[in-house]
Amino acid sequence: MKIKPICPRLALTAGEPSGIGPDIVIEAIQRPFPAQLVVYADPGILTRRAALLNVPLVLEDFRAASPAVVHTPGVLPLIPIAAGKACTPGAPDPTHAAYVLETLRKACQGCLQGEFDAMVTAPVHKSVINQAGFNFTGHTEYLAELSGAATPVMMLTHGSMCVALVTTHLPLTAVSGALSRDRLAAVLRVVHHDLQKRFALPNPRLLVCGLNPHAGEGGYLGREEIEIITPVLNQLRGDGMQVTGPVAADTAFTPESLAGADVVVSMYHDQGLPVLKARGFGDIVNITLGLPIIRTSVDHGTALHLAGTGQANSSSLIAALECALAMVHREHAGAEKARDLQEQPG
Amino acid sequence: MKIKPICPRLALTAGEPSGIGPDIVIEAIQRPFPAQLVVYADPGILTRRAALLNVPLVLEDFRAASPAVVHTPGVLPLIPIAAGKACTPGAPDPTHAAYVLETLRKACQGCLQGEFDAMVTAPVHKSVINQAGFNFTGHTEYLAELSGAATPVMMLTHGSMCVALVTTHLPLTAVSGALSRDRLAAVLRVVHHDLQKRFALPNPRLLVCGLNPHAGEGGYLGREEIEIITPVLNQLRGDGMQVTGPVAADTAFTPESLAGADVVVSMYHDQGLPVLKARGFGDIVNITLGLPIIRTSVDHGTALHLAGTGQANSSSLIAALECALAMVHREHAGAEKARDLQEQPG
Repeated sequence: MKIKPICPRLALTAGEPSGIGPDIVIEAIQRPFPAQLVVYADPGILTRRAALLNVPLVLEDFRAASPAVVHTPGVLPLIPIAAGKACTPGAPDPTHAAYVLETLRKACQGCLQGEFDAMVTAPVHKSVINQAGFNFTGHTEYLAELSGAATPVMMLTHGSMCVALVTTHLPLTAVSGALSRDRLAAVLRVVHHDLQKRFALPNPRLLVCGLNPHAGEGGYLGREEIEIITPVLNQLRGDGMQVTGPVAADTAFTPESLAGADVVVSMYHDQGLPVLKARGFGDIVNITLGLPIIRTSVDHGTALHLAGTGQANSSSLIAALECALAMVHREHAGAEKARDLQEQPG
Repeated sequence: MKIKPICPRLALTAGEPSGIGPDIVIEAIQRPFPAQLVVYADPGILTRRAALLNVPLVLEDFRAASPAVVHTPGVLPLIPIAAGKACTPGAPDPTHAAYVLETLRKACQGCLQGEFDAMVTAPVHKSVINQAGFNFTGHTEYLAELSGAATPVMMLTHGSMCVALVTTHLPLTAVSGALSRDRLAAVLRVVHHDLQKRFALPNPRLLVCGLNPHAGEGGYLGREEIEIITPVLNQLRGDGMQVTGPVAADTAFTPESLAGADVVVSMYHDQGLPVLKARGFGDIVNITLGLPIIRTSVDHGTALHLAGTGQANSSSLIAALECALAMVHREHAGAEKARDLQEQPG
């Protein structure tokens, strides 16, 4: 039985060292936060970046055995990972790739072992990691592999608006082929499960877009709605899930439509994300559903040209920290409630 | 040489008679409007619908030879087209299809002959027209055929935001195949030309989305950006056009991005329209660019269940009328300016 912690612990990773990852971590921890924040990083990279930014930073050894205490602005407990070579802001170096991956691996392990309640990641630079010879397609897939998750699902949120994607980084011509009944059902079950468990929604309302314009217009504009999406939605409805659709994507995001849904499920990247980013770019949180751990991330890239300039904006990272903490609290509250129900005399 | 009219004349079509087309026409003309409004319709359909809605309506014979006078609320000059059979709101009848098409044909002809300055259309019901045996894929294509336009382009606007589409109503799997260098160049030239001519933008700024997520990410997520889009944009830049892109669609619609563009050009339906409809559904205007005439339309369908109930909302039709009138004035102002320049002693 899990005991509710007095103070949650969140693991941070600082991402690609030549990008704005270190900058936004240093900026974000300058303000109070109602949980303990611990970073997996090379201390030299952080202290040099803080000096460059002229921002105060005190790094502390993290002691797992001590009780968690809420964050002190400007002070950051650290679990050291050696980067090897020094880093030049704005100039990515493939020799840092192994370091970047190691911060992710260790943070994920820390969460899996229960040392941390969630992990929050700053951006990495995919092509630099690939140049170093690693087969890396993104945080989401890497963390899924490390944690043995079969169906990681990318969900982005801004305020109360949530958009989950059935397919993510695929050429447009590959989207239809990647959409199968099994894949769609697995994704929708993950979304349903995680919104129940980590968003305190007893019966989440999923609004599912069609693949084609006007959701296929009865087969005139494509048949995936008839052959794949509708049968899956019928099956899930039979299992008691609240799933609506397939709906036309162009009107799925109107205020009236959103009012009736906890999450909009888009079939592909550019069907779902333009609306969300138009609305809240810079404050959006990227959440990986379907993992055994809680993981959130920023919604932007490494912005190499801003590294070390003081121009990087940490608001997405702060939103990601707040979102992760809220998920931790909701999950614990749900677990406590379940325990109380179990312990009540029958 | 075209003489600036004292009062522009706009032709209206009432669309599918069993839908909300007649309702919104009757509603919209209850308010003042600074131009003459003339409808192509069956007078019986309009008078019966007005009685059902309990809204005053006086139909007048339209006299082309009389000077245009600004609209009188509740009074509608009409060019009669016989519908034949009576119409039941909410129950579309394929025998009305020929009537619906005839209103479009006559209104288009009126514009081509210079009798009207623009046409504004209420929604039609495509599948009912198809059931009647007509090969009809939509207003846009029909008006293009009637007016001999090679490349009609669908552009939707809300306030200052404009989104033009390179492809429209296609299954998602057909989008990439429909995108050729010739097609893209033709569409972008039409957008550029019409924004110059009818939107008073001397050198319009076109922001062009990629086809794939992240605009293909350098070829990792698809090659259409490299093989089709970039070469076309380079060619058009060489011709002096202001075209930016291909840009990632998910961040093309942020406020910062929109501030630098007069129009966002999306490669397909669900890449461009969700953002626009999330922002302004109900007040969006659909404009057909690339025609020899000015044509605007509502952004919604026939809403059969609302016909005759008094619940239909005419705000999109009013926006379409206002947009058409603004285009007329800008085109005339541009023509006057060109004439003045021509008449100045060299």
